Amino acid sequence: MDREISPAVIKRMPRYYRYLGDLVEAKVERISSNELSEQMHVTASQIRQDLSHFGGFGQQGYGYNVKNLHDEIGRILGLNEMHNVIIIGAGNMGTAIANYVRFEDLSFKVTGIFDVSKEKIGKDICGKKVMSMESLGDFLSKNHVDIAALTLPRDNAVTVADEIISMGIKAIWNFAHVDLTVPGDVVVQNVHLSDSLMQLSFKIS
Amino acid sequence: MDREISPAVIKRMPRYYRYLGDLVEAKVERISSNELSEQMHVTASQIRQDLSHFGGFGQQGYGYNVKNLHDEIGRILGLNEMHNVIIIGAGNMGTAIANYVRFEDLSFKVTGIFDVSKEKIGKDICGKKVMSMESLGDFLSKNHVDIAALTLPRDNAVTVADEIISMGIKAIWNFAHVDLTVPGDVVVQNVHLSDSLMQLSFKIS
Repeated sequence: MDREISPAVIKRMPRYYRYLGDLVEAKVERISSNELSEQMHVTASQIRQDLSHFGGFGQQGYGYNVKNLHDEIGRILGLNEMHNVIIIGAGNMGTAIANYVRFEDLSFKVTGIFDVSKEKIGKDICGKKVMSMESLGDFLSKNHVDIAALTLPRDNAVTVADEIISMGIKAIWNFAHVDLTVPGDVVVQNVHLSDSLMQLSFKIS
Repeated sequence: MDREISPAVIKRMPRYYRYLGDLVEAKVERISSNELSEQMHVTASQIRQDLSHFGGFGQQGYGYNVKNLHDEIGRILGLNEMHNVIIIGAGNMGTAIANYVRFEDLSFKVTGIFDVSKEKIGKDICGKKVMSMESLGDFLSKNHVDIAALTLPRDNAVTVADEIISMGIKAIWNFAHVDLTVPGDVVVQNVHLSDSLMQLSFKIS
């Protein structure tokens, strides 16, 4: 496997994984790059080029083995391992994300939900009691956490990000409307909903 | 204004708008491409090139007029107009989005929330009563709607998208975990959270 996969290909991988997952469910065993091209609205040559990064599964005139390719992409995406996720911010977005992660995939598990608000602490979200931010340090010292989802107002997000990074968090799934500045060994994946909404607004105006 | 702005620049515009908005709030009147470069972690030459699409606001040795540039980018993004948004799917994600749109910007307004579930119909979300899907046609015939946010399970999203497009919806903000196939005059902006989570997983594995 070629570990030097370009960011553009990385961005496309989850989409391949999603389509191949649908094919696995539909019990399709093999698919050609042309068929996949039609479904995904990507050129067949792009597909062949992209998938060449994931090993030589395509066979001329025979197509890809769907299950193998799905598994291999999943493995590259790290989905063969379980990731423990905590959610910081137990508002609507935090609740939505807790539900989302639970249903989405067996590779991610919400292990804790935290909030500063007294009204939210102790509340049940997806079978987890919301914990206080004060208890986060203790929680992190006792539990391995792979990813922290920040579903907070932007004003708090920067401080909280600094805090959790100092406690050892190395990956942040950031829903706050702000770009976080983090050390080089910390990974941030942003979901900036307003940027997305503005792009839509641009397209229709 | 140059209407032929590349998709890559369009993707960056909301981020410029966000940073410039912060500067407007902080009462900063002028900023050089170098200063903006430091804040945004983008090269100054990229900034100069990007912003050149939005008119000749930069002056050598004097910088950009923050307010003018912010307003101009907002205008290009269509944020000088109000957009009526309906939300289809009144679960956690729909509720989160309703809250989000309400607080985010004065350019977007949630005018209706719809769901199929009897338990959700009539429920109050952000001061709006959730309406039945059966009432959607009637609502659309009486109210102008710019954007429909789909916060639905993927199995329902495809059918519902076809339905609302046949009722005249031209822009879909899609949170369902599926790529929608739509006619050429309909715009879709996807927020695929699982793709985002998988990218994060890739980066840490």
